[in-house]
Amino acid sequence: MNVSLDQAQAAIKAATEKSQELNLKMNIAIVDAGANLTAFARMDGAWLGSIDIAIKKAKTARFFDMPTGDIGQISQPGGSLFNIEHSNGGLITFPGGIPIKSGNGEVIGAIGVSGSTVENDHTVAEAGMNAVN
Amino acid sequence: MNVSLDQAQAAIKAATEKSQELNLKMNIAIVDAGANLTAFARMDGAWLGSIDIAIKKAKTARFFDMPTGDIGQISQPGGSLFNIEHSNGGLITFPGGIPIKSGNGEVIGAIGVSGSTVENDHTVAEAGMNAVN
Amino acid sequence: MNVSLDQAQAAIKAATEKSQELNLKMNIAIVDAGANLTAFARMDGAWLGSIDIAIKKAKTARFFDMPTGDIGQISQPGGSLFNIEHSNGGLITFPGGIPIKSGNGEVIGAIGVSGSTVENDHTVAEAGMNAVN
Amino acid sequence: MNVSLDQAQAAIKAATEKSQELNLKMNIAIVDAGANLTAFARMDGAWLGSIDIAIKKAKTARFFDMPTGDIGQISQPGGSLFNIEHSNGGLITFPGGIPIKSGNGEVIGAIGVSGSTVENDHTVAEAGMNAVN
Repeated sequence: MNVSLDQAQAAIKAATEKSQELNLKMNIAIVDAGANLTAFARMDGAWLGSIDIAIKKAKTARFFDMPTGDIGQISQPGGSLFNIEHSNGGLITFPGGIPIKSGNGEVIGAIGVSGSTVENDHTVAEAGMNAVN
Repeated sequence: MNVSLDQAQAAIKAATEKSQELNLKMNIAIVDAGANLTAFARMDGAWLGSIDIAIKKAKTARFFDMPTGDIGQISQPGGSLFNIEHSNGGLITFPGGIPIKSGNGEVIGAIGVSGSTVENDHTVAEAGMNAVN
Repeated sequence: MNVSLDQAQAAIKAATEKSQELNLKMNIAIVDAGANLTAFARMDGAWLGSIDIAIKKAKTARFFDMPTGDIGQISQPGGSLFNIEHSNGGLITFPGGIPIKSGNGEVIGAIGVSGSTVENDHTVAEAGMNAVN
Repeated sequence: MNVSLDQAQAAIKAATEKSQELNLKMNIAIVDAGANLTAFARMDGAWLGSIDIAIKKAKTARFFDMPTGDIGQISQPGGSLFNIEHSNGGLITFPGGIPIKSGNGEVIGAIGVSGSTVENDHTVAEAGMNAVN
């Protein structure tokens, strides 16, 4: 099952509102269960370099069905997945990407957010994810 | 000046409604004056291969400030821009990409649509473009 | 819904047997509904250059939910989709890629075959596709 | 000499069975002596991001005729092969890739496995490798 466009746009709306509340300018990407882009929005004035990062975070979260930051903890020097970022045309493994699940726990897509600190990116991604339900 | 996210989302909304009216499933991409992705939507069930094509059409239209189909007419064998598609990481030069202009005629972005015949793609792109004003 | 590994391996087995019957050496790729690789086999002595072509044919067939050869007919010079091959990291638009459908007509993946003439590639792909049911 | 398709499929079968025994969902890739893909299987529900990683592990193991984890130990910051992952379109240097040898010790290919911890990936790769003899 795939996240629908309605769900994806609801996630982007919630993430955008959370960003405005926190006075942030974000790039927000949604991919479906096949890790293919479903919806995207760049808030006015958000970093250009974060377009690709938001999309890569969403893909990375779906590629491994976990928050991107979890991968980053073990891709460090000496970690078990050191330099995994070289796969799949480039992964982003710091926080800001989160899988999106259906009511029964199946992963149906993922959200990726980029434009501020990784803490803020994750907070906004979470707000977007929570809108899908 | 750049197309704003509000304008981009209005264009996507109008393009989506035109697609539904014509019973089509489209991928719709908006880029800003810097040819950077601003907003994107894939309607449920739209072709996966059209994600990249919609984005490339929008970029191509802004890269040269003209409808993509105009470029395709001179990129044919023997034409003056033969195989220009090899540049910029891949151009798409058949119809479906159109520049978006501000009230005073300045190009502020572009829309790219993919998912049906090139005639339908162009019609839906036009509907999206017309919503920005 | 996605083609399962069992279905993908059955398709590869049928395609391999058809190839042997025709005295051909083929590369055979199966992708799922998300256009992600599910199974692959290169018969001993098959062309190395056909590894990538078989995979790209399978992806192309799923990207647009039609046999690859159908796209090739309109991507010719003067055709409405001229040079569409520049999208999606490279498409292959001559015959040998076919969508795979479930019993109810939903596209659940695709098969791509490369290693001989395009007629033979298509015939072998068809044999593989027919094994999924 | 190259691993044959029969050998490659036997390796995939053994690796798949080992994965089921350990309750894991794996991506399994086999390359030949030329480091070209020979066979591949993604078990139902296995991580999408591991498709590319399994293939890259198999290639990396054959590129240097050693287990991928051995390379990872010297590609760390300060190590003699720091960031070797940037070569060859992207290497994966954590465990899960192992060369496959013929009876007389010649390297005839390699197996790459991805989908779980690197320890499990290596265990399953070993099971696959042992089936080729």
